[in-house]
Amino acid sequence: MSDNKKVTSLSELGEFGLIDHLTRNISLKNESSKKGVGDDAAVLDYQGRKMVITTDLLVEGIHFNLVYTPLKHLGYKAVTVNLSDVYAMNAIPKQVLVSIAVSGKFSVEAMDELYEGIKLACDNYGVDIVGGDTTSSVTGITISVTATGEAEPGKTVYRNTAKVNDLVCVSGNLGASYMGLQLLERERKLFEESGQAVQPDLSGYDYIIGRQLKPEARKDIIEKFSEHGIVPNSMIDISDGLSSDLLHICRQSGMGCRIFQDKIPLDQETIEAATEMNIEPFICALNGGEDYELLFTVPLKSHDLIQKIEGISIIGHITEADEGTKFVATQGSEIELQAQGWNAMG
Amino acid sequence: MSDNKKVTSLSELGEFGLIDHLTRNISLKNESSKKGVGDDAAVLDYQGRKMVITTDLLVEGIHFNLVYTPLKHLGYKAVTVNLSDVYAMNAIPKQVLVSIAVSGKFSVEAMDELYEGIKLACDNYGVDIVGGDTTSSVTGITISVTATGEAEPGKTVYRNTAKVNDLVCVSGNLGASYMGLQLLERERKLFEESGQAVQPDLSGYDYIIGRQLKPEARKDIIEKFSEHGIVPNSMIDISDGLSSDLLHICRQSGMGCRIFQDKIPLDQETIEAATEMNIEPFICALNGGEDYELLFTVPLKSHDLIQKIEGISIIGHITEADEGTKFVATQGSEIELQAQGWNAMG
Repeated sequence: MSDNKKVTSLSELGEFGLIDHLTRNISLKNESSKKGVGDDAAVLDYQGRKMVITTDLLVEGIHFNLVYTPLKHLGYKAVTVNLSDVYAMNAIPKQVLVSIAVSGKFSVEAMDELYEGIKLACDNYGVDIVGGDTTSSVTGITISVTATGEAEPGKTVYRNTAKVNDLVCVSGNLGASYMGLQLLERERKLFEESGQAVQPDLSGYDYIIGRQLKPEARKDIIEKFSEHGIVPNSMIDISDGLSSDLLHICRQSGMGCRIFQDKIPLDQETIEAATEMNIEPFICALNGGEDYELLFTVPLKSHDLIQKIEGISIIGHITEADEGTKFVATQGSEIELQAQGWNAMG
Repeated sequence: MSDNKKVTSLSELGEFGLIDHLTRNISLKNESSKKGVGDDAAVLDYQGRKMVITTDLLVEGIHFNLVYTPLKHLGYKAVTVNLSDVYAMNAIPKQVLVSIAVSGKFSVEAMDELYEGIKLACDNYGVDIVGGDTTSSVTGITISVTATGEAEPGKTVYRNTAKVNDLVCVSGNLGASYMGLQLLERERKLFEESGQAVQPDLSGYDYIIGRQLKPEARKDIIEKFSEHGIVPNSMIDISDGLSSDLLHICRQSGMGCRIFQDKIPLDQETIEAATEMNIEPFICALNGGEDYELLFTVPLKSHDLIQKIEGISIIGHITEADEGTKFVATQGSEIELQAQGWNAMG
């Protein structure tokens, strides 16, 4: 972590000390955060508005590898992946609770780095830390984040309400995070196999590595929806991959879909990295996951409104269920979409 | 876990399969639970009421030992310890989100047992499961539960509002869970050291072992408060031990206290087990923890009302801060209370 910085063992602080240490200087920004850290529970007041609530667990060795994941980025990501779920309901995140289980091998300073990332994400997205738990673990770090958000009356968007002929839209570009992970893993293996003699070379791939290590949630898209008066018929965030997440929308809505290879947004770095590693770029986009982009459907009549939002791609449309869930390749062949999380590709 | 029952590996179901499997048949009971499991987030509507929210992490090898903890009890406890925090705010629990990280060594049937306990606790306390996450872990089980609850307007009770001359009260009896744990640990060691030849003998200690393995939250006390129109000045649930938790109230309220050894409620089984193991019973009560009883303070004038609630003990009173935080032994000597979680006693 750090070679010449001060290192304080967690046992010097103890469990209560660590909570106090990490949550000192936290001030509450949101009207709905009535009482934060420091009691048996936090107190929230949504004043008649609906709340959305979601939770995610990040486990060392499963979701992240500390060999190439800076703790500050890890903290940032632990928050943003949860906020992404809140935005995917067309809601505005307001609070998080952050629990951390950590083994004795980590220092107080390491926890400070992790919490710096957590706080930075909360600042960037206007979210209050109102609670959490810290505890020992037998091995490694586990982070559990719960995020809450406020839904505008009548504007909550679910997965199961896509309509036939809806346009299927996606924000940003896909597959970048997956290719970033492949590069990091390749360099890690070279580094380890070479007895740490070969230094990692990740130059030219800053963007896709950033997408893997420090993803953002698409706050801006939700704000644009509000600005332009758009309420999608259905929405989900892409965490498991375009294929899996579009299948969630189709199955839960009782619909089918057709999406088109040549409409799928890819960044140039993703294409270059994929080509270098002999992977089809569109396969990364379909099955990679961890994009934290928004996948949503809107009625045909919203076509012109959607065009006004920068960085939205219309990749296909919703069909009746009996037409299947189809991916149409550039050369015209059709294949059925497969549910396949990124774990399955490893 | 089970010798002749069906064993299905988690990999047969996969991550999505496990979530679907565990959360099938969940129906929502509470008016405030608008949408449960199955989307990016759950949707709650507290209709203008305040919400309390709390979260706790239970880690295998730190908080529980599966050698003597049935998975069903573990699931039950993971929920009730969180509900206890909600009650400690004088609020009524309504929803939980349950995340589980589990290694491949566990079977689907084992997860079913765990979830049975989770569901049983939710049924017993009228709480809806509205979300969560399941994932792999490198080793062991980690359970993260977030609980939400509804506060009656103006009746939320905090830790930092104890007043001078308040009566210090506690529900039930203390130290039982700690003594249950000591017995379980003693028998585990005998069993292991004997090469599994000596069978555990826990007869006669059902109550204190139950307090450790399957604790209840004091819903009944909160209901009695409401019935009798009592709103404590301050309250906390006893998870770290009477000493630590009373110190939280005193420090956060800027107060002192005097509590009396001969007023501290102990169950006969606790006294017997402690005596058998050469431990002072009142030390278990002070420092044991995991009691999940309610520790609260009420104004002197509430003395007669409090007496109407069965199973409440008045153990002392709140003083000015400069009088210290004192424990008065039966023979009259006074000692300062020490913050000491149960981990520190191990």
